[in-house]
Amino acid sequence: MMRNKIFEHHIRYLNELFDFLRIPSVSADSAYRQEVMHAAEWLCGSLSSAGLDKAEIFSTDGFPVVYAEKIVDPMYPTVLIYGHYDVQPPDPLNLWISPPFQPEIRNGRIYARGACDDKGQLYMHIKAIELMLANKDLPCNVKCIFEGEEEIGSDNLGKFIHTNRERLKADVVLISDTSIFSNDTPTLTVGLRGLSYLEVEITGPNRDLHSGVYGGGVANPINVLCRMIASLHDDNHRITIPGFYNDVLSVSEEEKTMMNQLPFSLEEYKDQLGIEDVCGESGYNTIERTSVRPTLDVNGIWGGYTGEGAKTVLPSKAFAKISMRLVPNQSSEKITELFIKHFTSIAPSSVKVNIKPHHGGEPCLTPVESQEYRAAAHAFEEVWGKKPIPVRSGGSIPVVSLFEKILSLKTVLLGFGLDEDNIHSPNESFRIDNFLKGIETIIAFYHHYAELKKI
Amino acid sequence: MMRNKIFEHHIRYLNELFDFLRIPSVSADSAYRQEVMHAAEWLCGSLSSAGLDKAEIFSTDGFPVVYAEKIVDPMYPTVLIYGHYDVQPPDPLNLWISPPFQPEIRNGRIYARGACDDKGQLYMHIKAIELMLANKDLPCNVKCIFEGEEEIGSDNLGKFIHTNRERLKADVVLISDTSIFSNDTPTLTVGLRGLSYLEVEITGPNRDLHSGVYGGGVANPINVLCRMIASLHDDNHRITIPGFYNDVLSVSEEEKTMMNQLPFSLEEYKDQLGIEDVCGESGYNTIERTSVRPTLDVNGIWGGYTGEGAKTVLPSKAFAKISMRLVPNQSSEKITELFIKHFTSIAPSSVKVNIKPHHGGEPCLTPVESQEYRAAAHAFEEVWGKKPIPVRSGGSIPVVSLFEKILSLKTVLLGFGLDEDNIHSPNESFRIDNFLKGIETIIAFYHHYAELKKI
Repeated sequence: MMRNKIFEHHIRYLNELFDFLRIPSVSADSAYRQEVMHAAEWLCGSLSSAGLDKAEIFSTDGFPVVYAEKIVDPMYPTVLIYGHYDVQPPDPLNLWISPPFQPEIRNGRIYARGACDDKGQLYMHIKAIELMLANKDLPCNVKCIFEGEEEIGSDNLGKFIHTNRERLKADVVLISDTSIFSNDTPTLTVGLRGLSYLEVEITGPNRDLHSGVYGGGVANPINVLCRMIASLHDDNHRITIPGFYNDVLSVSEEEKTMMNQLPFSLEEYKDQLGIEDVCGESGYNTIERTSVRPTLDVNGIWGGYTGEGAKTVLPSKAFAKISMRLVPNQSSEKITELFIKHFTSIAPSSVKVNIKPHHGGEPCLTPVESQEYRAAAHAFEEVWGKKPIPVRSGGSIPVVSLFEKILSLKTVLLGFGLDEDNIHSPNESFRIDNFLKGIETIIAFYHHYAELKKI
Repeated sequence: MMRNKIFEHHIRYLNELFDFLRIPSVSADSAYRQEVMHAAEWLCGSLSSAGLDKAEIFSTDGFPVVYAEKIVDPMYPTVLIYGHYDVQPPDPLNLWISPPFQPEIRNGRIYARGACDDKGQLYMHIKAIELMLANKDLPCNVKCIFEGEEEIGSDNLGKFIHTNRERLKADVVLISDTSIFSNDTPTLTVGLRGLSYLEVEITGPNRDLHSGVYGGGVANPINVLCRMIASLHDDNHRITIPGFYNDVLSVSEEEKTMMNQLPFSLEEYKDQLGIEDVCGESGYNTIERTSVRPTLDVNGIWGGYTGEGAKTVLPSKAFAKISMRLVPNQSSEKITELFIKHFTSIAPSSVKVNIKPHHGGEPCLTPVESQEYRAAAHAFEEVWGKKPIPVRSGGSIPVVSLFEKILSLKTVLLGFGLDEDNIHSPNESFRIDNFLKGIETIIAFYHHYAELKKI
């Protein structure tokens, strides 16, 4: 029934979305400043037109947050929808087949910067709500919060959420800004890893020395740093920091079974990366290692002479940037402390260690047993004809941590993008059927969620 | 007797040396090109004036080599004297108390660029020969070879020596281009370490990856490189490359006792370097570790993100420059091969290794039991009133390897500089008494050497 109604309106939906896509709201480039503001205004109007109340543009120290809500019944559960109306820069322009801000349909796809990330996916929510309101069939209260700085780090969002935590009270956060594995294999991202990122500095002698005159007698900070880094993993590629795994939640057998249903080919994975062999923690496969297990990676290292040719220097200092991906229920702050304590303790007395924590982020998890997951899974099954596979992303989505930290809310990542959508690249696109099925899935989610909350 | 004669002429010697020092023969700066050529001509004239024969300027692809010889008697032993007439750039000029190319005497020292390195020390040899010839008392044949590219790498010297190996036939090489520990503790450098220098490249995935999405599942080339480097030393700081120590000559107890007579203070050494502790191979002290033991040092390392802040990259590549200091009787070529074989063998299958050898150099040793060492030690004892302490330098002097490799000649490093001479720095100087005592020691060396060769 809903499918028919969506199809009935879909030309209008697309035309409206095209208006939205025509606004070059590139947040990273100050030349587009006015356009970003214009997108916020357009969006605010679109929320009102859809039937939402209290549509308002909230200023921040950066680009504004657009807010609107519809309180149908105070007894209904409340869904907080997050999205972003800013887009990535379109460069390199010459690689676009059609201009990035002149949306065009080819082969069933909408081509435009922002088609998938995130204007197209954001707009599905507005149209879903509009349709439910028109049918007097919105079974939840909704609150929308759309920011204009996602592509440049969401610097002002935390403050906004914190200041407006009363206004934003809800039961669950719903975000469509991710992808599914494929249309044949729908997936639901249920977990994100957290992050602890540090920079270490090892100081040996107080100045660069001649490696002939001093070599062999004085600790070389690069050799020492390598030894310290090497010692952070054991032969099974487990991290040796005492207490590191203490808080790690083990994955239920059910989830493990489900995530391994993904049609993953190790041979294709290796081919695509040009490697002979994968490498990781013993006892886990590649999917598990990159999603439900914590890691420690050196992201950068430098010291001594790095120019052309040879210089026989025994350097004074060596540096590394080291990050750990964390899994539920590790705490970024605690892991950072454990790292600092351990790394300092393993330094030989011949060097000094200085450690600077960069930023951190908490891991997030929406358990597959939770109401919000089950509602999303039912919605997918209903619309796509297949049970979605729960997957954990190895990366982090900082706003999800923000909602969890400030509002204590779990997030459902109901994304409909595909790998081939080329987000952040030339010729970004979004499949029209995913756009329409997305609206349908969102509507189904509301109904299943309301149903489950009632019980 | 010789001392009196030297003193008699010393004002003339100094005046001549000052003329030499006034020529700004800076080989590194093309603006001084004519001056370097001028220094070669001046030197050639000075060799003729001193009574040497066949003084000639030999062109090379760079700056010329100045040659002269005196064959007193074909039965006499032949001493090949090496020195260089080019000097370091004088920058920063503003730190010089008197201009670098206007020699000046202050507190018993000659202040000028090149005063010690190497014009002053080179000129001692010419005056020593002149005096012996004047006295009809030159007990050896002499051949002089003075180059103009020492400060820029002696690029053309090897070819010259090779081409002229007949002309340069001799029994020993004599070089005054080093320092003694102090005037109270004269030292003789009897050994130099060799070098094997390589650059390694570790490739993991074929492109930089997102450390969230791939971290834990794919080998990180920086982590792998650190682990490989760390494994090159064991817990006793011994190098683990199989066969690495096979050819290392152990040091005689006699030499060990002698080198440890040096008034070395570990506390001062640590203070001066700002370190809490030294670090090196178990079973050896700092003097031994930096002179008679081989080493492995990372001279440079780089990979991944090294800018400000944090970037969560799992890089495709990591690099390091690694050098090994070698001791007699290790072979640079052989050690380079052993390194490549071992380093390749320890790489996990998840990465690729590429190794590029840079340059190498052979270790050199003039045994304390040799005639040339004994002649030099006697000469020192006679002139300075103290037996010199044999020391090994941890660094390398490439020309010494050249003479050993091409001419199969041992070198006596009869240097008279001091640490406080500030070679390569502003206000370079050379003590007048060291200049005069140097001439006397050189003359004594000829006599002792001729005496020992007779037996």
